[in-house]
Amino acid sequence: MTGTDDETERHRLKMQKRKALQDAEIASKSVEKGLLLVHTGTGKGKSTAAFGLALRVLGHGGKVGVVQFIKSRPTGEKTALEAFGDRVVWHTAGEGFTWETQDKARDIAACRAAWETATTLMDDPGFGLVILDELNIALRYDYLPVEEVVASLAARRPGLHVVVTGRNAKPPLVEAADLVTDMTLVKHHFKAGVKTQAGIEY
Amino acid sequence: MTGTDDETERHRLKMQKRKALQDAEIASKSVEKGLLLVHTGTGKGKSTAAFGLALRVLGHGGKVGVVQFIKSRPTGEKTALEAFGDRVVWHTAGEGFTWETQDKARDIAACRAAWETATTLMDDPGFGLVILDELNIALRYDYLPVEEVVASLAARRPGLHVVVTGRNAKPPLVEAADLVTDMTLVKHHFKAGVKTQAGIEY
Repeated sequence: MTGTDDETERHRLKMQKRKALQDAEIASKSVEKGLLLVHTGTGKGKSTAAFGLALRVLGHGGKVGVVQFIKSRPTGEKTALEAFGDRVVWHTAGEGFTWETQDKARDIAACRAAWETATTLMDDPGFGLVILDELNIALRYDYLPVEEVVASLAARRPGLHVVVTGRNAKPPLVEAADLVTDMTLVKHHFKAGVKTQAGIEY
Repeated sequence: MTGTDDETERHRLKMQKRKALQDAEIASKSVEKGLLLVHTGTGKGKSTAAFGLALRVLGHGGKVGVVQFIKSRPTGEKTALEAFGDRVVWHTAGEGFTWETQDKARDIAACRAAWETATTLMDDPGFGLVILDELNIALRYDYLPVEEVVASLAARRPGLHVVVTGRNAKPPLVEAADLVTDMTLVKHHFKAGVKTQAGIEY
């Protein structure tokens, strides 16, 4: 056996072992359930990853509900998801970030209305995934009580996946979640003077 | 003025100040350019955030190219993106993770072919975004030379956005990128025995 054959064989055995470990790990999982996912952190990708999951669910034939708690700017993803007709239901309840409106009472009312819409979507068995976009911002400013929100999320239908996005996820929500990802900012183009662009920020 | 009015006014002034700061920051950015984005880390959301960006670009009328370097399992996002017809071009070059094939030479050849496809898509002015899914895995195993890949990415068309996904992004790629997000695993449902599910993992 030449040196190269030897190396090839070592590689094959290493990968075979890794595959066996991975297969065993996958086989050990048996629970199938709707997940509560939280995308938090200061980096980019929290909402976009939620919309990527929407594509996955749509690709498997499911329906998706979206409630935007804070953002009001028209976004490319909203336009694009219109391609799926009534398989995507989209509610934008926010009237912009709070430093846009500068009216706390109005922001609280908007968040409350958004939350009512969210619970209606979560109760509808037609939906496989509900995205609660920027709900963490509403919770952070105490525009909605975290105890009420977490209790409703915990009591959702067994098969329903829910994604909550936004910075500064509160500890009770993290505690209740099945999967939590912190999108950590490593490097950002704003630092280099690059402006907000269609297709990237909205 | 009552205590509540006082609080409302304080909130208004605080938010007004924050908005002024944010407006000034946005106004200071003037560069518009295609970005090189890297989604890395051990958490979930690297590929899904890339596909969320695809929705943004599609919503603004752009075309998207996707090259999958490693994964071969059929995914929901691929099926869903078929709704956009020839505005999405998708190539799956990988034949599965390397611990599936256990054949290094074949993996290298598959990555090389994927890279040739990627450069063709990047050179085509019709595309606004090219997603190089799991390219970091190919680079990590040295199936493609990082110097060659980074040089090509740096020399891409000025208006083109490129997203590279996968764990363990190499330092030269991070250095060349405009935006890097580390999807950091905080909590994962596999730990609780929950299995891989359609709509969530694929």
